[in-house]
Amino acid sequence: MTEKKSTNVVWHSHKVKREDREKLLNQKGVILWFTGLSGSGKSTIANEVANKLHELKKLAYVLDGDNIRHGLNKNLGFSPEDRAENIRRISEVANLFIDSGVIALTAFISPYRKDRDFCRELAGEGRFIEIFVKASIDTCESRDPKGLYKKARSGEIKEFTGISAPYEEPLKPEIILDADNQTIEEETETVINYLKEKNII
Amino acid sequence: MTEKKSTNVVWHSHKVKREDREKLLNQKGVILWFTGLSGSGKSTIANEVANKLHELKKLAYVLDGDNIRHGLNKNLGFSPEDRAENIRRISEVANLFIDSGVIALTAFISPYRKDRDFCRELAGEGRFIEIFVKASIDTCESRDPKGLYKKARSGEIKEFTGISAPYEEPLKPEIILDADNQTIEEETETVINYLKEKNII
Repeated sequence: MTEKKSTNVVWHSHKVKREDREKLLNQKGVILWFTGLSGSGKSTIANEVANKLHELKKLAYVLDGDNIRHGLNKNLGFSPEDRAENIRRISEVANLFIDSGVIALTAFISPYRKDRDFCRELAGEGRFIEIFVKASIDTCESRDPKGLYKKARSGEIKEFTGISAPYEEPLKPEIILDADNQTIEEETETVINYLKEKNII
Repeated sequence: MTEKKSTNVVWHSHKVKREDREKLLNQKGVILWFTGLSGSGKSTIANEVANKLHELKKLAYVLDGDNIRHGLNKNLGFSPEDRAENIRRISEVANLFIDSGVIALTAFISPYRKDRDFCRELAGEGRFIEIFVKASIDTCESRDPKGLYKKARSGEIKEFTGISAPYEEPLKPEIILDADNQTIEEETETVINYLKEKNII
């Protein structure tokens, strides 16, 4: 209840809630958190899932390096503190999106369990869907679309996940995608089927 | 175009664009940036506009102190640098929301023209709607819902906008609301009518 004293009108403000927006959109606001090595295909799969969701008339939005690193997180570097802050901000933004009813897809290496679990806790029960894009170093290194593995091997890039910095595999991810063997179509279908089974879409 | 080398499948990724999401939602993604003194009614009006938009089956989301200060911006204080960073992050997040097709409403004092203009530039032509909630200090001080003016007058709070810190009025806001004389219903109607006139909803 908000009182507007200047006009002596007592104003009963019924805030629109997440459930109301979800009803409007006919979907549930959840985070699809893609995690995996550089080159595992996180961003490609996330965008394909977003495409498929759009075809199904669902509202989805991808947060990835393209729209985060040059915007919200452009004042962060690659120190341990900045990496943690990077994931923290992404988690908070993803949570705003799911509160708005949108299906938020995030595509970041996010190598530390602690950081991913922070987002899981923030989102709450059933709202955080961890998708482990499991690919061997060999697969990722053979793709190496940005030439990063080459630079990591030569020492030009230090603390590169999987080479000179750890990647902590998810212990109980909601979905595991076998990126060594599955096609992008198959990976996309796996995610979409999960969302249907859980009545998220 | 993304190439998945492991399967020799060349994958043509057609990213879903803002226009596609706007078509799905039957609305345009814009920022409604409410600015004005503490106690002018920014948050109340923003929430009422969001309610009205929901009734019209439009997807809107309010960013305000409640969901920003305790989340994304909880590691910011009230120094000049932190205040600027506060508004910068809000601007970046609002821009992600409008990119997703959502109507983003922000309700922050945002006293500096420079900060608001940063968001205007980021959003681009026609996407940033500055709404000046114009209320006299007398009106705001007589409401003082959180007792902040009292503390500012006693010196307990330093650098309080309108008392001991400047508020830079918008020079060419898209909308001016006369909070000294209009009711919340009237203010809400003014904003909704603007959105209809501009074919945003």
